[in-house]
Amino acid sequence: MRIARFTTGDDPRYALVDGEEGAEELVVLTGDPIYTPVQPTGERIPLTDAVRLLAPVIPRSKIVAVGRNYAAHAAEMGNEVPVSPVLFFKPNTSVIGPDDLIVLPPWSEEIHHEAELAVVIGKVTRNVSPEHALERVFGFTAANDVTARDVQRAEDQWARAKGFDTSCPIGPWIVTDLDTDDLGIRARVNGETRQDARTSALIFDIPFLVSYISEAFTLLPGDVILTGTPAGVGPIVDRDVVEVEIEDIGVLRNPVVRRD
Amino acid sequence: MRIARFTTGDDPRYALVDGEEGAEELVVLTGDPIYTPVQPTGERIPLTDAVRLLAPVIPRSKIVAVGRNYAAHAAEMGNEVPVSPVLFFKPNTSVIGPDDLIVLPPWSEEIHHEAELAVVIGKVTRNVSPEHALERVFGFTAANDVTARDVQRAEDQWARAKGFDTSCPIGPWIVTDLDTDDLGIRARVNGETRQDARTSALIFDIPFLVSYISEAFTLLPGDVILTGTPAGVGPIVDRDVVEVEIEDIGVLRNPVVRRD
Repeated sequence: MRIARFTTGDDPRYALVDGEEGAEELVVLTGDPIYTPVQPTGERIPLTDAVRLLAPVIPRSKIVAVGRNYAAHAAEMGNEVPVSPVLFFKPNTSVIGPDDLIVLPPWSEEIHHEAELAVVIGKVTRNVSPEHALERVFGFTAANDVTARDVQRAEDQWARAKGFDTSCPIGPWIVTDLDTDDLGIRARVNGETRQDARTSALIFDIPFLVSYISEAFTLLPGDVILTGTPAGVGPIVDRDVVEVEIEDIGVLRNPVVRRD
Repeated sequence: MRIARFTTGDDPRYALVDGEEGAEELVVLTGDPIYTPVQPTGERIPLTDAVRLLAPVIPRSKIVAVGRNYAAHAAEMGNEVPVSPVLFFKPNTSVIGPDDLIVLPPWSEEIHHEAELAVVIGKVTRNVSPEHALERVFGFTAANDVTARDVQRAEDQWARAKGFDTSCPIGPWIVTDLDTDDLGIRARVNGETRQDARTSALIFDIPFLVSYISEAFTLLPGDVILTGTPAGVGPIVDRDVVEVEIEDIGVLRNPVVRRD
């Protein structure tokens, strides 16, 4: 199932996404399926320009992100492959949705895209084993771990470099019941492919990550895990359009703007 | 005013704290004063053992913490005084309240207390100047930035070392309209003073920190800023009791337990 959060001008609502690409319809739901049992309201809305898709979840607790989780990306940054996952947080104020603007902060001159597969947690999860980790997952979406690379190089802690407003586009929707072992993951800037890899190259796989993270922090429904970016990261500048595409999920597209 | 969050067995409620130490009464409020206009309900409850004080706020977005913000602490850790604030995040799942247990995680052998003055944000705040920063503050409380020192040394990013469950005790209540320029700040372990300093020694003061942080991330009501710890940090172990005391705020007391 594909689950979207959307607005037609009023408060956000949730829907199943039905139909083929280019002819999708939203099957409106009675509530937020991450937190409550839901059913269709009976209303169906064609996915046209009158509908605005929103970030499919705004975490109430945390986004846990994983650094250096593809060997080729660790190498391009001059880093060793880590012996255990490198974890950091992004705040929920960094989250934006499909087609929302990535606003480049005035205190950085070098902002990079980072295409990532994102995991959305569905249940309160603590000390789960890798064998049972996927049972705690609600679904998967695409993410862009937008990074102020110059600030990341200059500062030991990555909070500013990776936590600024609009630095966490996610979407276009959450896909449940997805086998993520070997999905294509790409980033394009203005239509040109910059990152092109497969999730099979993840150093630490999703069951391991969910387990490892749950031994450090209790994961809550709606928490999001960004699983790391493959090689090919590079700059985005004013008026670019950046797309993250993950096979069997979809395309997350965001224009870029600089406001000084 | 002192504002507490408490329970007598039911859902959390909020109250003004009235009266002298040892004879406090809770003046119950109609709601959460951080988010909504409130008034007294008329109910008054003596602050006895039948009342459990809770963390005075659970941030809906983020805790932004500041590292190395007292010169003597930077020196004891072998670090230079930073040229700009070192920022990192703690998740809201790390927050506990007065008398709640600090649970030492099994993956660390060296957990330290860090007494800190905490700022509670009251208004949506973005790009505020230092001159207007205090207008965005709801109040102040005491915090303990509990840290797995061995993990902090071993890992570049501090998410695990400083983000685990129970690593962010705050309380006992929020004090509004407080001049924090020169307050005593202390940590005691089993009654023995370990940290003893004054907030006048902060390298980056509170107006500057709120301003600087608001240029990186939009601050939301209920967000908490931990302003850094003075010298004297040290280990806490199973069955210790750690207290953070801040002048004109009060004492935040937490027992320590190891569960392997």
